[in-house]
Amino acid sequence: MLTVYNSDSLIVCQGCNAGTFQYNEDMKIKTTEHYNRIIQGATAILLTEGLAAFSTTKVAKHIQMAQSNIYVYFKNKDDLLVSVFRYHQKKYIQFLVDRIDLSLPPTDALKNLVSTLDEFHSSDKESLDVIWSIRQSTTLRQLIPKVSDDQIFIAIFQWLKDLQHQGTVRQLPLMYLTNLVFSAIIDYFQLIDSKEMSPNELAIEEIVPPLSALLFV
Amino acid sequence: MLTVYNSDSLIVCQGCNAGTFQYNEDMKIKTTEHYNRIIQGATAILLTEGLAAFSTTKVAKHIQMAQSNIYVYFKNKDDLLVSVFRYHQKKYIQFLVDRIDLSLPPTDALKNLVSTLDEFHSSDKESLDVIWSIRQSTTLRQLIPKVSDDQIFIAIFQWLKDLQHQGTVRQLPLMYLTNLVFSAIIDYFQLIDSKEMSPNELAIEEIVPPLSALLFV
Repeated sequence: MLTVYNSDSLIVCQGCNAGTFQYNEDMKIKTTEHYNRIIQGATAILLTEGLAAFSTTKVAKHIQMAQSNIYVYFKNKDDLLVSVFRYHQKKYIQFLVDRIDLSLPPTDALKNLVSTLDEFHSSDKESLDVIWSIRQSTTLRQLIPKVSDDQIFIAIFQWLKDLQHQGTVRQLPLMYLTNLVFSAIIDYFQLIDSKEMSPNELAIEEIVPPLSALLFV
Repeated sequence: MLTVYNSDSLIVCQGCNAGTFQYNEDMKIKTTEHYNRIIQGATAILLTEGLAAFSTTKVAKHIQMAQSNIYVYFKNKDDLLVSVFRYHQKKYIQFLVDRIDLSLPPTDALKNLVSTLDEFHSSDKESLDVIWSIRQSTTLRQLIPKVSDDQIFIAIFQWLKDLQHQGTVRQLPLMYLTNLVFSAIIDYFQLIDSKEMSPNELAIEEIVPPLSALLFV
């Protein structure tokens, strides 16, 4: 494990494999730079070719770096993919933290959540696609952080739990209810992105009433 | 395109690439047998390793067949994956056709659909996993048959359309509503299969009321 003394160190080098590196000032910069270049390249390959066709060979070629160099930073392909997930998940969580307001009345908070995800989809579709495609993989799903590992998701769960105690939210496992709400939103984006449906046929705000019906009693 | 005179010919050889083969009685048997062996092997690799790690090299090794032989039947990896999808989708559709009853009152028909998918999940989880993982891939999604290509899905759409005219089903695009219902059911299976939730915490029948609330007005 390589430790990089950098404000972003824990994220930047989570899962880094230092190999035979010796730490020095020069190395510090080179490491972060290379690490980020690999993450960007891997993101590009994942999004253009899909998980099925993803390989470190393609990433190396895309960023014009020796493939062996990728393995200095990542143990294997899965480790690289999990790090790509963490990188985008971090951006996603920060976006949510800055905008979500759970102090609103329940239906307004749901509206706010839906429009926040819509904003994120518009401003950073790439990150959302990466997060979703990796979460859908049965094998990778087991390697990525659980939703319960992060403060914002814990807060959303607690909010729903409190509303269940008040009898406002349906008495079903929160794990299932939250999955359902996120799937409903992601389904919408997928149909829009694949052009199977246009925003004229269904505006994002229009999914709030069926979601309210599903979630609230 | 190789034509095999077999009751199952259209399915068996959809996408077959005959290469330099000459048709003869011996070939007919060999072809169907090999084709099925490749489909089975590809299914096994897809389910154990996931889309990300899928390769024809692994399939060839698994079924102890020369990799070049796979390319006699399938143009490339995507062609093989689409054929694997078609194979499992055919089983899935037959299962639905035999059990779904859209003449029931709306909520009962929804219950019947949920329990039919649950039965299929219990009896042929493998096919459901294949269908789902391929449908989730942005690249492969564009190569597989659309839901509107099949009679049973057309019937489900028509049923919902009629109920919309009667004012029973929410006035939202059917493309979105059907996606939502199937996602809700698949989300349930995924949480059960990954052991993130147990059937004791949530029985499949318990997802019918929130789905009814979402679908019906």
